[in-house]
Amino acid sequence: MATSRAGYAATSEERHRERMQRKKELIDRKIARATVERGVLVVNTGNGKGKSSSGFGMLARSLGHGLRCGVVQFIKGSFSTGEEAFFRRFEELDYHVMGEGFTWETQDKQRDIAAAQAAWAVAARMLADPDYDFVLLDELNIALAHRYIALDDVLAATAARPERQHVVITGRGAPDALVEAADTVTEMRMVKHAFKAGIKAQKGIEL
Amino acid sequence: MATSRAGYAATSEERHRERMQRKKELIDRKIARATVERGVLVVNTGNGKGKSSSGFGMLARSLGHGLRCGVVQFIKGSFSTGEEAFFRRFEELDYHVMGEGFTWETQDKQRDIAAAQAAWAVAARMLADPDYDFVLLDELNIALAHRYIALDDVLAATAARPERQHVVITGRGAPDALVEAADTVTEMRMVKHAFKAGIKAQKGIEL
Repeated sequence: MATSRAGYAATSEERHRERMQRKKELIDRKIARATVERGVLVVNTGNGKGKSSSGFGMLARSLGHGLRCGVVQFIKGSFSTGEEAFFRRFEELDYHVMGEGFTWETQDKQRDIAAAQAAWAVAARMLADPDYDFVLLDELNIALAHRYIALDDVLAATAARPERQHVVITGRGAPDALVEAADTVTEMRMVKHAFKAGIKAQKGIEL
Repeated sequence: MATSRAGYAATSEERHRERMQRKKELIDRKIARATVERGVLVVNTGNGKGKSSSGFGMLARSLGHGLRCGVVQFIKGSFSTGEEAFFRRFEELDYHVMGEGFTWETQDKQRDIAAAQAAWAVAARMLADPDYDFVLLDELNIALAHRYIALDDVLAATAARPERQHVVITGRGAPDALVEAADTVTEMRMVKHAFKAGIKAQKGIEL
């Protein structure tokens, strides 16, 4: 029952084709079952890298499709220079950065609350406006964790938003009720981070 | 020992300030300890959403800083239309998409291997070129998992790259040796996904 080398190779090719054929059928069936078309609420949380950068990657995709987009960054600081410099140039994008630093930088709770509330007012306006197809609320979870913005307001505004509008919310410590309300939730889990090995935050990567 | 409401509020403010002061000192000390400046190798893996979109977010940041960037997408398919449409317009960016579909779509192993190898040749050229400040190798892990590209080649090329060059590698199932070699690794863990609830892949989010 020995098979020639060429015969074995052909069989292996054939097996690969059959396996991939089955995989394709499985994936095609799953795709066929996913028929609902509507805006989704995406939450990126966890202590690892990639929560905000993933939000900005989706923003780039959305702009690539010609969607009307809005961004509110709830933490202004040194950690938001690259994306701001990049995205501000697009006229079809409404880009807001909260005016003040935040929490440990300002050390002034009343000023932080006022700034967070002002940022939330801009966000709430976007969430109520069907002209926005995609809204990124960057680091909103941090403002929620500090209770500078009421979770109930966020839940109500996202629930009542236009049906086709996508919303992406980022930041550590997403509240359970927000995870519950969301369609897609990712925990960015830190396996390792260059910063812990003594490497400075790098332009293009963190900055 | 009752305190007036105003007195309590002032004390609470004071406590917040002290807590944030300590937090700032802690963070400032950590930042001061991170003194190394060099290119980092970032790996985004796991079964959740955000691996590629985070890579494209870092690409946007890098372009925002005027860095010279290169992208190789190792999986061409319907899942890469938005970012391609968006990023292709930037002349300072060298953007390559592997010519063929992949694995379960083509069902032709030899063609897949040839396409993956051709894409790797482009990537290897970027990794050897100090003119590239930032290189995104999107879904390279999938090609590695299928053994269409040799892991040793990837480890050697990333280890020998210019000192200032950042590299971001995405895709499920990052090999252990690549995780070991990387500076920053995030596991994107799926908490939930809209697709599983019957919602189609949406433009700007997945597409």
